[in-house]
This record gives sequence, C-alpha cells and structure tokens, in this order.
Amino acid sequence: MKQENLAMLCDFYEFTMSNGYFKNGFYKRNVYFDVFFRKVPDNGGFAIAAGLEQVIEYLKELHFEEEDIAYLRSKGIFDEEFLSYLANFRFTGDVYAVPEGTPVFPNEPIMTIKAPAIEAQLVETFVLLSLNHQSLIATKANRIVRAAQGRAVLEFGSRRAQGASGATVGARAAYIGGCAGTACALTDELYGVPAGGTMAHSWIMMFDNEYEAFKAYCELYPDNPTLLVDTYNTLKSGVPNAIKVFKEVLLPQGKTKCAIRLDSGDISYLSKKARKMLDEAGLTECTITASNSLDEGLIRDLMMQGAQIDTFGVGERLITSSSSPVFGGVYKLVAVEDESGEIVPKIKVSENTAKITNPHFKKVYRYYDKESGKALADELCVYDEIVDSTKPHTIFDPNATWKTKTLTGFTARELLVPVFQNGACVYDCPSIKEIAAYCKEQVDLLWDEVKRFENPHTYYVDLSKKLYDIKGILLSVAHES
Amino acid sequence: MKQENLAMLCDFYEFTMSNGYFKNGFYKRNVYFDVFFRKVPDNGGFAIAAGLEQVIEYLKELHFEEEDIAYLRSKGIFDEEFLSYLANFRFTGDVYAVPEGTPVFPNEPIMTIKAPAIEAQLVETFVLLSLNHQSLIATKANRIVRAAQGRAVLEFGSRRAQGASGATVGARAAYIGGCAGTACALTDELYGVPAGGTMAHSWIMMFDNEYEAFKAYCELYPDNPTLLVDTYNTLKSGVPNAIKVFKEVLLPQGKTKCAIRLDSGDISYLSKKARKMLDEAGLTECTITASNSLDEGLIRDLMMQGAQIDTFGVGERLITSSSSPVFGGVYKLVAVEDESGEIVPKIKVSENTAKITNPHFKKVYRYYDKESGKALADELCVYDEIVDSTKPHTIFDPNATWKTKTLTGFTARELLVPVFQNGACVYDCPSIKEIAAYCKEQVDLLWDEVKRFENPHTYYVDLSKKLYDIKGILLSVAHES
Repeated sequence: MKQENLAMLCDFYEFTMSNGYFKNGFYKRNVYFDVFFRKVPDNGGFAIAAGLEQVIEYLKELHFEEEDIAYLRSKGIFDEEFLSYLANFRFTGDVYAVPEGTPVFPNEPIMTIKAPAIEAQLVETFVLLSLNHQSLIATKANRIVRAAQGRAVLEFGSRRAQGASGATVGARAAYIGGCAGTACALTDELYGVPAGGTMAHSWIMMFDNEYEAFKAYCELYPDNPTLLVDTYNTLKSGVPNAIKVFKEVLLPQGKTKCAIRLDSGDISYLSKKARKMLDEAGLTECTITASNSLDEGLIRDLMMQGAQIDTFGVGERLITSSSSPVFGGVYKLVAVEDESGEIVPKIKVSENTAKITNPHFKKVYRYYDKESGKALADELCVYDEIVDSTKPHTIFDPNATWKTKTLTGFTARELLVPVFQNGACVYDCPSIKEIAAYCKEQVDLLWDEVKRFENPHTYYVDLSKKLYDIKGILLSVAHES
Repeated sequence: MKQENLAMLCDFYEFTMSNGYFKNGFYKRNVYFDVFFRKVPDNGGFAIAAGLEQVIEYLKELHFEEEDIAYLRSKGIFDEEFLSYLANFRFTGDVYAVPEGTPVFPNEPIMTIKAPAIEAQLVETFVLLSLNHQSLIATKANRIVRAAQGRAVLEFGSRRAQGASGATVGARAAYIGGCAGTACALTDELYGVPAGGTMAHSWIMMFDNEYEAFKAYCELYPDNPTLLVDTYNTLKSGVPNAIKVFKEVLLPQGKTKCAIRLDSGDISYLSKKARKMLDEAGLTECTITASNSLDEGLIRDLMMQGAQIDTFGVGERLITSSSSPVFGGVYKLVAVEDESGEIVPKIKVSENTAKITNPHFKKVYRYYDKESGKALADELCVYDEIVDSTKPHTIFDPNATWKTKTLTGFTARELLVPVFQNGACVYDCPSIKEIAAYCKEQVDLLWDEVKRFENPHTYYVDLSKKLYDIKGILLSVAHES
C-alpha cells in the first residue's frame, strides 16, 4: 500500500517561517535539529523508540501536489518563487536516528536531522508526530508486557483509538513494545503484526442460546477456538456451556487446544473458578484469556493474586496510553552551518533550567558492561569525538560534575545510525519481528532498578567534557547578551 | 481528496463472526445495533457528538480490494464462498444518527445501524473508532472553549497527536467543539478549518539576534504578525524588541494590528506585565496569545486571576484529551428481524446493572421548554411511538419510577435522523462552519447546571413507558433462563 502523502500534515508556521527563510537567504544553509524528550510517560525509567519506519516512508514520498500549492497560494501571503520552490521540493538532507525498539532516555537525541533550513523546518510536525505517537504506545506496551511476566498480551484497542492511524500504527508500536499480536486486521495486512480474534457478545445473541452459539463456532473453527463466556452468567452458563461444547465437538476430533475469554466481572475470582471447572472436566489445555479495562497496574495485581490467566487482551488503556497519553518529544535547533560550512552550535536558553537544550551536532554512545552485558550509561559527545573502549573512560554527571565514574571493561555502541544521506535512504528497515526481538533483547540489558514501575532509578545520560564545555560557553554568552 | 479505503480497519473477529453468519444462514437477516456511551469524559455533564461525516465517507467507499481478500484467504479459515461475497461487498443498510455537534448524554443511541448481520458486524470497529475519537476531542474542545469565556481558542497539537488522523481529524473535531482554528495546514486543506501560525523559536535562533528576527518577520508579514517573545527573556528582551519592531515597521505603514505570543514561564504574571508595557507604548491593539500546557483547568484559573490573554493556543491536552483520553462508545445488538420480518428486541444482561443495554429499535426525543428554549430531557421510545407535543406528556426516571414529571408547553425534536437508506446516503452533511455554529447554539440551550465543570447536574435520559415495559419483560425472561 502506497504511503499517503503527508506533506501538508504540517503546522502552518512551518510554511510562514520557510517562506521567510526563502526570502532571507537561508535557502540552502544547513541546520541541525535534534528530536529528544524530557520525561518518560507514566514516570517510567525509560522509553522505547518507535516510529522511524513511518518517518522514512514520509521523507521518501515527501512532495507537494498541485492542490497543496493552490491551497497555500489562496492564503495570499506566500511568495510565488517560494511556491515554485515547493512544487519541486524534495528532502535532500541527512538523518541519524536510534533504531526502533531501542530503550531511550530523557534529554538524548533519538533523531538528528541535518538539512537546508526550509527542509528541516517543514518536516518538524510529522517527524515529531510519528516518533511521539509510536514511542508512546511502544513504551506503554512494554510496561504492560513486563507486568504480565511472560503471559501473552494482545492489543485489542482499535475502536477506542484516536483516529485510524492511532489504531493501525498504534498496534504496530504495541507489537514493537512486546505485544504478541493485535485484533486489528489492517495492522496485520500492512505491517505483518499477527492479528487474531474470535467472537463478540453479538455472536452469542444472534443464536437462540449460548450453547448453540458456542457449538456453531467450534464446528466452524475447531482449531483452538476461543469462546466468550460472560454474555449471560460466566460460571453458571458460560463456562459449563463451553466445557460441554469442547467435549462434544473438539475432543471427538482429537483436538484439545481451546480457550475461554472473560470480559467482565472480577477477573481474578472468575479465572480461578473457571480454571478449576476446566481442569475438573479434563480440559487442562484450555487456556483463559481476560480482557476488560486492563493495564500494567491491574495486571500486576492480578498476577499477585494468582489469577489463572494465560493471555491478556488490552484495549483502550494501551492504544491511547490512557494513564499518560502524551509523549513530549521536541524538535530543537542545535547547530547551523555558517557561510564557510563550519558547524556553529546553538543553544535555546530558558528561565526553566530543565528546558535548556544540549547544543551542537552530536553522537550518542551507550556503554555496556563487558561482563554482565548490562547498559551502564549513555554519553552525548560532539559529532567528531571518538571514545576508545580499550582504555578506561571517565564520565561525570553534568548536573553534579564532582560525581565521576571511570568505566573499564566496557563496550561502546553508537546509538544514532545513518538513515538518510543527501536525501537518499541508506538504512534497511528490519522486519517488525526483528524490531520486536531487538527491543526485548535491549530491555533485558537494562538493570532491574531502571525497569521498576514506580520511582525507577535514573539512568545516566552524561555529556562529554568537550560538549559540557561548549554548552557552558554558550550559556555564559547568552546570559551576557 | 479520495477517502482511504478503511474496510480492513476492522477487528479480526468481525471476519470470523461474519464468516460464521454466512455459513449459518444469517446472511440476509437484518439486525439493529446501537452506538451509545456510558460515561462522559472528564466526568462532564454532556458530550458533543462528532465523527459522522467520516462514517458516511467510509460507508460510501466500503469495499474489499483483491489484496484484502488474498490476505484473508492466507489465514486458511475462511470459506471461499464467503470470500466471494466479500469481494462484492457493499453496505446496503440503514443508518440513523444524531447530527454532528449535538450535545449527547450517556445511554442514549447516537447512531443506530440496521443492516444484514454481516454488514452490521463488519462496520463496527470503524464506526466506533470514528465516533469515539471525534466525540472525545469535540467534547474536550467544548470544555476548553467554555472555560475561555469568549476568548479565542486555537488547536495547536498536531505534533503530540496519536497518529496522523489523530491530528487532522482531531483538529476537525476541535473546531466542531468551538475552537476558532488550528495550526494544522492539512486540516484546513481537507476540512476547511481555518489554519494559522507564525513562528517557532527556531526562527529567532536562525538570525543573529531577536530584534533582527522580529524585524524580518514583520517586514514579510505586516498584516497582524504574531511575535514569539520568550526565546531569551520575555520581559527584558522579547516584549521590548517586539514593541520596537512594531513601532518601526508596522506603524509607519499605518498598521496597528499585531500580537505577541507567550509560550513559557508564568503566563498570568507575564501577560499582565506585557499588557502594561504594550499599552504604555501605545500598542493597545496588540493582542496577547498564550500557549504552554493549557487546558480548561488552567484557563479557568488564568481567567480568575485576570490574566491579560486574548487567545489561547492549546496543544497536547486538547488533541489527546489527556486528562480523559478515551471515549467509551460501544456497539450493541438491540434487535433482530425474525424470518417474517418482525423486529425482535434483544437485551445484553450483565451482573453489572449499569452495563444492561436498552433493547429495541428506538427513537430519541429531546424536549425543549417553549418559553426558555432550554433542553428539558431526552426520552428513548420504541421506533413506532409518536409523542404529541400539543398535549401534556409525562416522563419518569427509569431508575426511580415514582419520580415523574409532566411536560407542558414544550417542543419535541427527534435526535436520530436518517443518514443511509438501503445503502444510499440520504443525508446532506452541513459545512464544518454550520456544524460548529449548530453546536454552539445547542450547548447554549443546556441549563448551566448541566454545563458545570465539576459535579454537573445529571440531565434526564428517560425511557418511554412502552420501552420500559419491554425492557422489564426481557430482563425477567433472561433471569429465568
């Protein structure tokens, strides 16, 4: 399916500014923007980066149609030369980004875009939207999946998603974060996320009674059918009818795989009772799926109470990340090239010190302990710095410079990888299954302290000495002026 | 722009069920589904219905492409005859819905779909998604707009939206709810919601200093330019530079309309100081726009404190309805036609009494007081009931039947209007401006008590005697079985 042209999904000010850059000679001047975020949703210890593949498709397709130009012309404020420029617009810049599925932390770039000022400006809205949305859902899914401690989590939320792409792209991100599948057929067809599903209450109500409805279903789908048992009365009607039908229809065919789904009532109590009834009927292979307003908090509670649930279906609280529905990624100018092509670092000062940016074109190193394999710290460096991991390397906390740590026996990995060079995509997107596997592997390399749900340990994101000094100089210049 | 074919944006179980209906002879049996919700987001007193126009476009376009059929076939569980049926699928049913912009209340149908079982089932996911998403955002926007008490509210949230349609369609819904415009250019181009915008911090940082940046901007856009004044220091640098440039560039051209935008710091304090500085400089026509994590709570506070803000720019908290990001509309079977074509009401019972559905094919009356024009109550009736508003009409609370009220001097309006008949659209969608005007007019007809932000009065949604009796019979039958 061809990517929709989303060139106009753009804040209007990108056009007013770009028209101004065009008129003021910033037409071809290269600028550097970082995408980063300041706070992990749900006060978690880390986020999962996602949404890069959709940014890549967007940048590849990016152009303006005649009707877009006509729309802009109708506003009566844009220069005709600028509109001609837009009619021939293509993205020609460089992009660096962390691969999808990477655990990421506040205040480090997850993407850097180097491009002529207009190009870098015009892509801001969609780049942020894609990374913010998918990182939000992947991060939430990862929390829920970790709470489920190995039980499968399925994404069920399309009907409560915030718009069509909220559902489809959201389910993609949920799979990256660790969900085993989705209910959304389009997400399967478009992105290869396995979709499944069985019946709603309407199926049951369409038949004369629950038994007939179950029987018809199992005759049609004898391979691992899931029966929804709460339409009338879960324990008095639903589970007994399911047992009867499984025995009458499946067992004679030699089939033992089946499931029931609980969608209301007290899931903990009902699952334990149902498990007992199923086991007593000899249906030990019958699994129990639960849905109904689940999230990581409720799942942790259910697990603690020994609820007999094999699969969790999670809907609205995952697909909207309802307890923390905003991922606050921002897009900030960090450097410009002067007329000689030299990179001049830029800083955005603020009365709120937490909002001061890390200037310059940067690289991000992640250091792993050689012995345990665990991630130790990230360090932001100036683009031309090289860390030699064969030698001891001292890092320090930029907010408390006397706190230093010397790393020995570590490996260093650059997180930002080249994605576009001079407008050409140089990155092979991994398959969705590879991304999900990579995500799991990388989350496993975080210390448990960083993964705690409440009040997690703050992972170190440090600045190199060189970057720290540059930032200091820029800050003092800004305060003098 | 052609509507994307969203036929596959569908929970997978709609296909497994539909395949079963096909095999079990429910192929052509008409069924009735209601869309309704149980709780207003943010515990508000009413919601604003939105999303109908996108449902209409979806139903008009609804068909399956060859690749969709191939995808379903690859699952190995669907009957070839069913797949052939899907290849020729079109929606042939009837749809009734409340017009977009209508204030609506829990437990009343906002849409009713009558169609052959498979058709009614297959549209469930998208119908819910569209109505849930847009009603969520329109409802939130209406809260924010009411808090602003006549000051303009602009939607600024694209970059934090949950997906592309979260941004574009979301901004459409925000306009229905009362926003004056959006920052999203695509929403303007697609839906005619006025878009605007001026500059980001990057504009300022691209120039040697703030003064140069402001000057370049005003020279380019002398008609009502908005300058962002918080890049360095709002009161020491931003506002003085803005005043200087307005005086140097605009006044000599005889232009007095201009604005500044505050995007950080204490908006209340800064706006009052800035207002004073602008007035002392004679720039009394210069307006002040504020943005930065605004919502109805903060805006109410700012208004109470006498903040000097003329326009509010609201981002992430509106476009995600962050304090209450889910609109819980459901899609429930309420009746089926038997072989003779008679409508048989259906009920979904539940151990949770709040989840028991209102059965049958229904109509919804809204009663208005003739004198004040205010909305008095809604009444759900069986489809063939007619209320004669020339005679006194007694309504009663279905949860406390002894509480009755006799209406006299009232007008009655049917809320559900025909949208599709036998698959043909019979509804002319109003323009987006008409919808927004209608919404405002209808919200003005609600009593203030219903519009309170905290703990609002519960508006009456009653059942007619006939419907109440049918529900009672169905409930007692369900509990006997």
